[in-house]
Amino acid sequence: MPTTVDSAKAKNLSFVLEAVHKVKFEDRPVPTLKNPHDVLVNVKFTGICGSDVHYWQHGSIGPFVVKEPMVLGHESSGIVTEVGPAVTTLKPGDRVALEPGVPCRRCEPCKSGKYNLCLHMAFAATPPYDGTLAKYYILPEDFCYKLDDSVSLEEGALMEPLGVAVHITRQGEVKPGDSVVVFGAGPVGLLCCAVAKAFGASKIIAVDIQPARLEFAKKYAATGTFEPARVDSTINAERLRSEHGLGRGADVVIDASGAEASVHTGIHAVRTGGTYVQGGMGRDIISFPIMAACTKELNVRGSFRYGSGDYKLAQDLVATGKINVKELITGIVKFTDAEQAFAQVKEGKGIKTLIAGPDN
Amino acid sequence: MPTTVDSAKAKNLSFVLEAVHKVKFEDRPVPTLKNPHDVLVNVKFTGICGSDVHYWQHGSIGPFVVKEPMVLGHESSGIVTEVGPAVTTLKPGDRVALEPGVPCRRCEPCKSGKYNLCLHMAFAATPPYDGTLAKYYILPEDFCYKLDDSVSLEEGALMEPLGVAVHITRQGEVKPGDSVVVFGAGPVGLLCCAVAKAFGASKIIAVDIQPARLEFAKKYAATGTFEPARVDSTINAERLRSEHGLGRGADVVIDASGAEASVHTGIHAVRTGGTYVQGGMGRDIISFPIMAACTKELNVRGSFRYGSGDYKLAQDLVATGKINVKELITGIVKFTDAEQAFAQVKEGKGIKTLIAGPDN
Amino acid sequence: MPTTVDSAKAKNLSFVLEAVHKVKFEDRPVPTLKNPHDVLVNVKFTGICGSDVHYWQHGSIGPFVVKEPMVLGHESSGIVTEVGPAVTTLKPGDRVALEPGVPCRRCEPCKSGKYNLCLHMAFAATPPYDGTLAKYYILPEDFCYKLDDSVSLEEGALMEPLGVAVHITRQGEVKPGDSVVVFGAGPVGLLCCAVAKAFGASKIIAVDIQPARLEFAKKYAATGTFEPARVDSTINAERLRSEHGLGRGADVVIDASGAEASVHTGIHAVRTGGTYVQGGMGRDIISFPIMAACTKELNVRGSFRYGSGDYKLAQDLVATGKINVKELITGIVKFTDAEQAFAQVKEGKGIKTLIAGPDN
Amino acid sequence: MPTTVDSAKAKNLSFVLEAVHKVKFEDRPVPTLKNPHDVLVNVKFTGICGSDVHYWQHGSIGPFVVKEPMVLGHESSGIVTEVGPAVTTLKPGDRVALEPGVPCRRCEPCKSGKYNLCLHMAFAATPPYDGTLAKYYILPEDFCYKLDDSVSLEEGALMEPLGVAVHITRQGEVKPGDSVVVFGAGPVGLLCCAVAKAFGASKIIAVDIQPARLEFAKKYAATGTFEPARVDSTINAERLRSEHGLGRGADVVIDASGAEASVHTGIHAVRTGGTYVQGGMGRDIISFPIMAACTKELNVRGSFRYGSGDYKLAQDLVATGKINVKELITGIVKFTDAEQAFAQVKEGKGIKTLIAGPDN
Repeated sequence: MPTTVDSAKAKNLSFVLEAVHKVKFEDRPVPTLKNPHDVLVNVKFTGICGSDVHYWQHGSIGPFVVKEPMVLGHESSGIVTEVGPAVTTLKPGDRVALEPGVPCRRCEPCKSGKYNLCLHMAFAATPPYDGTLAKYYILPEDFCYKLDDSVSLEEGALMEPLGVAVHITRQGEVKPGDSVVVFGAGPVGLLCCAVAKAFGASKIIAVDIQPARLEFAKKYAATGTFEPARVDSTINAERLRSEHGLGRGADVVIDASGAEASVHTGIHAVRTGGTYVQGGMGRDIISFPIMAACTKELNVRGSFRYGSGDYKLAQDLVATGKINVKELITGIVKFTDAEQAFAQVKEGKGIKTLIAGPDN
Repeated sequence: MPTTVDSAKAKNLSFVLEAVHKVKFEDRPVPTLKNPHDVLVNVKFTGICGSDVHYWQHGSIGPFVVKEPMVLGHESSGIVTEVGPAVTTLKPGDRVALEPGVPCRRCEPCKSGKYNLCLHMAFAATPPYDGTLAKYYILPEDFCYKLDDSVSLEEGALMEPLGVAVHITRQGEVKPGDSVVVFGAGPVGLLCCAVAKAFGASKIIAVDIQPARLEFAKKYAATGTFEPARVDSTINAERLRSEHGLGRGADVVIDASGAEASVHTGIHAVRTGGTYVQGGMGRDIISFPIMAACTKELNVRGSFRYGSGDYKLAQDLVATGKINVKELITGIVKFTDAEQAFAQVKEGKGIKTLIAGPDN
Repeated sequence: MPTTVDSAKAKNLSFVLEAVHKVKFEDRPVPTLKNPHDVLVNVKFTGICGSDVHYWQHGSIGPFVVKEPMVLGHESSGIVTEVGPAVTTLKPGDRVALEPGVPCRRCEPCKSGKYNLCLHMAFAATPPYDGTLAKYYILPEDFCYKLDDSVSLEEGALMEPLGVAVHITRQGEVKPGDSVVVFGAGPVGLLCCAVAKAFGASKIIAVDIQPARLEFAKKYAATGTFEPARVDSTINAERLRSEHGLGRGADVVIDASGAEASVHTGIHAVRTGGTYVQGGMGRDIISFPIMAACTKELNVRGSFRYGSGDYKLAQDLVATGKINVKELITGIVKFTDAEQAFAQVKEGKGIKTLIAGPDN
Repeated sequence: MPTTVDSAKAKNLSFVLEAVHKVKFEDRPVPTLKNPHDVLVNVKFTGICGSDVHYWQHGSIGPFVVKEPMVLGHESSGIVTEVGPAVTTLKPGDRVALEPGVPCRRCEPCKSGKYNLCLHMAFAATPPYDGTLAKYYILPEDFCYKLDDSVSLEEGALMEPLGVAVHITRQGEVKPGDSVVVFGAGPVGLLCCAVAKAFGASKIIAVDIQPARLEFAKKYAATGTFEPARVDSTINAERLRSEHGLGRGADVVIDASGAEASVHTGIHAVRTGGTYVQGGMGRDIISFPIMAACTKELNVRGSFRYGSGDYKLAQDLVATGKINVKELITGIVKFTDAEQAFAQVKEGKGIKTLIAGPDN
């Protein structure tokens, strides 16, 4: 990756996507605070996920197309370096997790408590908004979550995927005593298992086609695992129910895989009157057992990013020791090696790779 | 239809399905009360719906297969003729609507307020349970709903499809001021429009491919109508939203058609965070725009029959004049002409055909 | 009321409370737009309610004490005269109802969909914030609700008490078919009756100790009325239930009176598992039948002002003819006679008195 | 306590309340199964609670008056000895916890999922229904909860108070991350702390006026404790909030004391928009800070016994080790010493005293 910037001297070294598979380092001006409620954060760690890699590989996700060079990254933690005059809860030096999507606060979804569905969302590393893979990032104070003394900045970068998992699990209305099946044992699926456990679920079955991932899931947070066979989804669902004593089905099924086969098996594995959450992204249109969903009177719910209270709870779950996110960090690369992290995620290596901040 | 029974002299004339397309009249013994909470009802009117016709034509619906001769019919009203010793709210002579599915009252769904999902449901005209197309039918007192003086027995037979529509609309959590789109302007779709109106919806758009049905819907309960074109579902949804001022989409979409094209258009027509209810029955597996449902964070809910409070509210809505079910009754045939009613429904003639009771 | 201001020449004539029972007219500078989302409104009509009168008489309500001269009034409609550069939904000339409390949009209640509970609310005519009894008032565009062509500016001023009633009725989760009892037949109680009716309630019983108010309620929106006797609250509740066929009690009881006797009768009149809403303001501490609330497993809910969607629904209910607010307007006085309106409300004359805007 | 019965030879030794403070042992006939869904249970352990003692001391609780001799006791576990012909989930020898209230299954509350509010409840040791302090007791199979192999019969007897605590905590909608304050550190209050912890609450503050109870609570399940001073409830609430970092108040307050001072402090200690549950029984009418409840828009909810799913979850919480009920058992007396247990509870000795079954 050719770059002309002298990273050691850069004021605000940034990792920029120019076009498909074309990234570069750039020294951008240090941003200045305009809104009195904003704070300036020195970014310390950033995790990489599938959507970052998707932009890198394809230059777009659905309707979002990278037209101008855009800083990547949105799973970050950092240290507050400057605060606006109206800020009351943070001060320079505070260690924070960054919630990377700032809603308009004025549209109907915002005012009804669903700011994740904001009609005018400004989300990091979603065109045209720059991401967090830079030395500095500006956010309103209420989108920076102070980390407990017991929580490291590395863990702070995991609050983003944990926020996703908290939101999915809340969409699933997982309650104490519930049986929960989670399809897909990648970072979000694993965190859904952990959140379901913290929410008091009695049975948490992780489903994946890779035995190694199931092994990890079992050690991490699942109470049982299931590897589907290449058979009809009703047969897999039947075996899943009987092997794990789920009786007439799981109370909640979460799909964190996006795979068509998982969706089918999941719909057949949930009990009548139960809840199915589509958390994983996959093909826009798939085949779907709609009559099973209808006659079992399921609640089939989507889940999109995170909203009111999700990050706060994520931080709380880690600070109180109910969820361990450290175990998911399988590698940390230097900022100047950022592209390596993208390549690792693309190849499915490790669980979560972090990129250290430019001055870390 | 050959029959040897002398209908005039029969004690309990019944309309029985023997095999596919093979029906007959039979004189069955008058049933006797066993449970002290039961009442004996002299059936007066019975409506016919698609599921009755399906059994007549195919001998089965999904896993339910007619193996023994079975009395058909489940949308009925009648007059109480005898009551068990524990009955306190009904007496002989009371005019009632019959709720034709009796749950076990002991399983988990029953005890949690979802008896429509009972694991041991005894439902009229669903094998092996006989239906209501007979002179007499037995039900527990709490599944007979006394008709207000202002409500006729003919209207009483419509409480069943109205109960279905009430349940669907409740699954949709339709609230005052909501915009609601209903796909399918058959009896249940029309009644969903009427219930949505009674629930205070501000806009109720009926969608169908038959202009005559839309005309009726407009006069009946819809505030607007939409006839989809043979184009992509996103284009139909876009036109539906703009023609009816739905802005970012309808608050609630109800499918009462079961058609794949309706499902797609419906998912695209509902707003982010809105609710979609699958009320119509169709093919088991269809293609489905699952990513739209996921990223719009929809609530996609099934609806199955009717449950706690649905029949009570149905009766109340008719008694208070909020819903007119009379307009939907397009024909009444004699009991001995019952097969005609089945043929009419099959051919899509009229909206709702009733069969008079044997002694009516 | 001595005043030195020449009202005809005043740029922004305002009605100001200086101290207990001491009001004056003042010409204040026309406010200028600062926030790009704000609009300037020429106020046309303002209703007066009990809290306005309370400030006038006592100079304070609870912890809110008038220390500096403060413009009174918060139930207003007007015409937009200027819009900020970010405003997209309004333009000069638009007729609007004003929602007079602007939340911070950043605190936890705001972001969770309960902005009426905002920790930093700026509410008109609540110290230290000036009210709307002036020629001009500034609000963010999303707190101005465009009136339908069919809705007059006079009616627009009633959106505030209607918003209060919508919020109370929503707190009561009034559903189609419900029986609702409303204590207190003043403006808010009457509007609660109307909203409950629009929400599909089957029985709406207005309760008051003044027969004339009950007569009006019956004509207006109640299906029945009840005048309590000077007897024990359990006896009144028993008679209320039996006279109005409420069986084991009302589904929902709303108190819009604040009177201790009403609270007791209301708790005894609601059914087991039902909902009681405290909408009316009265003494801070009263005696309360807490064991009845406990063993009947009631939901006892407070209601405070209005929040997400309440004003929008209020406008919609009037625009669609479901609620008539005109009937409640019993007088309109000139701006320079504003103090008369306060005196009338204090004396309980009429139902709702409006004060015309300075240039109206 | 004079008794003529030979306890060693008795077929169905029973502990009977004849009149105020007058109890006796009686040999009653072994009951025979009538309903095909019923089972006969040999009672093994029975806990004693305040309501048992209240009948013993006063002969009545509210409207329930002991007119005929009545067997006491309702917190029991036992072993199934005989099952009716329709029973499918239990067999002789199964160890079970007994849910002692059998609803009618037919009334509106029953069918809507709130059987604890059944209009025709038959509850053990509530006149005219006999209790469980006997060798044998009959229940429907679905009110007997099979104990996990890891759960002892002694622990099984604790499922009743734990079911009460589960119901209260569910009424409080306690969610992961919540702060919860529990007033009263008796058996139910302690169990509420434990359930709140199992539900994921982050802070659980036990409040009591007895330091010894607070010490126990701290070791048992509370994260903090608070001993109120003899000052105004607003001052206690303020100190409670500040000492325990509750910010603007607790998310949920549970009263398990029934004391007026607790109610006041609790209402002042809960945050705006929070939930207060009245679980403890006390005087019928108390003074109540109703304006605080109104303007903070609280949900004030009653809690009565236990309902759908509560016992199942109670068993599950103990079986999975999430809640330890053993620590609460501070004594076990022989059946023939039953009156001692009543005396101990009356005197406030220990936390939970069990009475062994007649043949235990």
